[in-house]
Amino acid sequence: MAKLYYRYGAMGSSKTANAIMVQYNYMERGQKALILKPRLDTRDGLRVVASRSGLKTDCLYVEELDTINPADYDCLIVDEAQFLTRAQVERLVAIVDEMDVPVICYGLRADFQGNLFEGSRWLLAWADTIEEIKTVCWCGRKATCNARISNGHVVKAGEQIMLGGNESYVALCRKHWAQGKLGNEGRER
Amino acid sequence: MAKLYYRYGAMGSSKTANAIMVQYNYMERGQKALILKPRLDTRDGLRVVASRSGLKTDCLYVEELDTINPADYDCLIVDEAQFLTRAQVERLVAIVDEMDVPVICYGLRADFQGNLFEGSRWLLAWADTIEEIKTVCWCGRKATCNARISNGHVVKAGEQIMLGGNESYVALCRKHWAQGKLGNEGRER
Amino acid sequence: MAKLYYRYGAMGSSKTANAIMVQYNYMERGQKALILKPRLDTRDGLRVVASRSGLKTDCLYVEELDTINPADYDCLIVDEAQFLTRAQVERLVAIVDEMDVPVICYGLRADFQGNLFEGSRWLLAWADTIEEIKTVCWCGRKATCNARISNGHVVKAGEQIMLGGNESYVALCRKHWAQGKLGNEGRER
Amino acid sequence: MAKLYYRYGAMGSSKTANAIMVQYNYMERGQKALILKPRLDTRDGLRVVASRSGLKTDCLYVEELDTINPADYDCLIVDEAQFLTRAQVERLVAIVDEMDVPVICYGLRADFQGNLFEGSRWLLAWADTIEEIKTVCWCGRKATCNARISNGHVVKAGEQIMLGGNESYVALCRKHWAQGKLGNEGRER
Repeated sequence: MAKLYYRYGAMGSSKTANAIMVQYNYMERGQKALILKPRLDTRDGLRVVASRSGLKTDCLYVEELDTINPADYDCLIVDEAQFLTRAQVERLVAIVDEMDVPVICYGLRADFQGNLFEGSRWLLAWADTIEEIKTVCWCGRKATCNARISNGHVVKAGEQIMLGGNESYVALCRKHWAQGKLGNEGRER
Repeated sequence: MAKLYYRYGAMGSSKTANAIMVQYNYMERGQKALILKPRLDTRDGLRVVASRSGLKTDCLYVEELDTINPADYDCLIVDEAQFLTRAQVERLVAIVDEMDVPVICYGLRADFQGNLFEGSRWLLAWADTIEEIKTVCWCGRKATCNARISNGHVVKAGEQIMLGGNESYVALCRKHWAQGKLGNEGRER
Repeated sequence: MAKLYYRYGAMGSSKTANAIMVQYNYMERGQKALILKPRLDTRDGLRVVASRSGLKTDCLYVEELDTINPADYDCLIVDEAQFLTRAQVERLVAIVDEMDVPVICYGLRADFQGNLFEGSRWLLAWADTIEEIKTVCWCGRKATCNARISNGHVVKAGEQIMLGGNESYVALCRKHWAQGKLGNEGRER
Repeated sequence: MAKLYYRYGAMGSSKTANAIMVQYNYMERGQKALILKPRLDTRDGLRVVASRSGLKTDCLYVEELDTINPADYDCLIVDEAQFLTRAQVERLVAIVDEMDVPVICYGLRADFQGNLFEGSRWLLAWADTIEEIKTVCWCGRKATCNARISNGHVVKAGEQIMLGGNESYVALCRKHWAQGKLGNEGRER
């Protein structure tokens, strides 16, 4: 009866902080929740997840799932789940359905061009429960899209995943994402 | 400020009935809501949507969107939205964002093999709000997957869309879908 | 592991039609779902629930729960659940928690003066899952409030429940409900 | 078009941490979000909200709303909203509907005896959007109820709000809350 959750949110919607807090809540109740992330994502250092707001905790790589017994945990939590492969999502599905261990995945929905990531695609297809972590665009509307920023401008072409580049990302509502408007034209800040 | 809604549900979750009721509710308030469906789906006859529970109403084909002015309506409702093409979803996005007309799409999430449809893929990527229309598996759990049945058995191979065949579909929980269990083994019915 | 659901919606949000469709979906899967309603509500005739859109089915009174064994059913569905008493909600909670039978309640949230009904109060306090059935105000915003109309005007005083009166109700957004604006000033209809 | 949100969750569901993260996300976008709490709650010190997980930030008392102009903010965030009075909730409704400033309230649903708090009662009646912040019982089910613990035992009688006492609270599923089972019988920890 365990469930696979996909909690998606745009850049800067506190997905990692939520993941860490869920683990914390399990711990407070004397339960064990393990945080995992795809190895791809190494911006926060080795085997660590860290939120922009300052929360930080140890994690394991999804690629290391074979080294543990999921049944030893009350919950598995996956951060940066958009980077999962199809096979990894299938593995998580099996953990939920066959071992009855709940799995909560946090990730982006679509990339800077509006395409689903491999992980989000299969999680959206198979999750038992899809939940949104909301955040806002500079205009006050809900932000659902992720813009890639390079030298202060929205760029619309490039690789889906850029490692070690100088790009940054910002969450925009779909309208401002389509228009490429960052909302700071003429502002001083 | 209008929104694009994707209300997904497995086979037999009353998606069409919901679409018709939403139109009815708009009409009761003196507003105009247009129901559309992709032309592909002709099981219910020409330009008609019909629910299994007996509700029925006229509709237009999504391919005929050019013959109307979306701004004449308070809401567009799309049934069988899993069959939309990417270009059609983009068109609906533009109606929401540029004409400020809300669009509510009803459809399946994944096909009988667990793959997203073209329409559901882009709606899951771009919708402002993703909502589930729930239904149950024979075991009582939530049904999230669609099994194709041929001669009383679950089949796992074949075309994504079969028109005019003898197949039928049934909604199962992910576990029974993976096992191919219809739950009527040994039952007489 | 069964759950108590409260699905609330304003007047005219198709709550009864949804209740009937959920029963239909259970039946299609060879399962039994019983519809109940508080005896108070007799507008649709004896032991019948009927939607404005034309769906209709037999039901039992909540007061008659003692005459059946809830465990004989795969699901209990309660319409007009805002009229439940606290004791009746407690009875439903016990059916969920002790007999493991899911109970899905449909009802209004607040009355025409913005006060919770007895049934909605305790369902909002105790339900496992609270879900909204959305409908629209004449202005296009979501309607969350219920206005009582008498002689074409919004009235703000009176009994919470009026049986056999000439009042009618209309769903409005909170702003227009507070202003008492029906949106048909100057319109001919 | 601003909305009043009620995000309810049981004890230990990270409501305060969520409130602080939402403020942080607004700030990151160059927007201003003000956190408020009812004066009653002084456990975290004067004009500070602090999460168990270590996040902390300044706040204002709801009673001090007159000293600011809500229109100066992009969002108001209220923590411990279950302690709001009806009049304070009405004030927040007016800020949303008349000043078009979104208000996000975080709070408990029901007290240790299963009764709604004054604040949660009116927020559940009037909020535009009701969302749950989930947490788990020691048994793994969703925790929806709050038990008061005194000397290691669940107590069922007493004042709704105890200030300065030795009580603590723990979130339980409804079944274990009704049974008063804390799940640590016989465990060593």
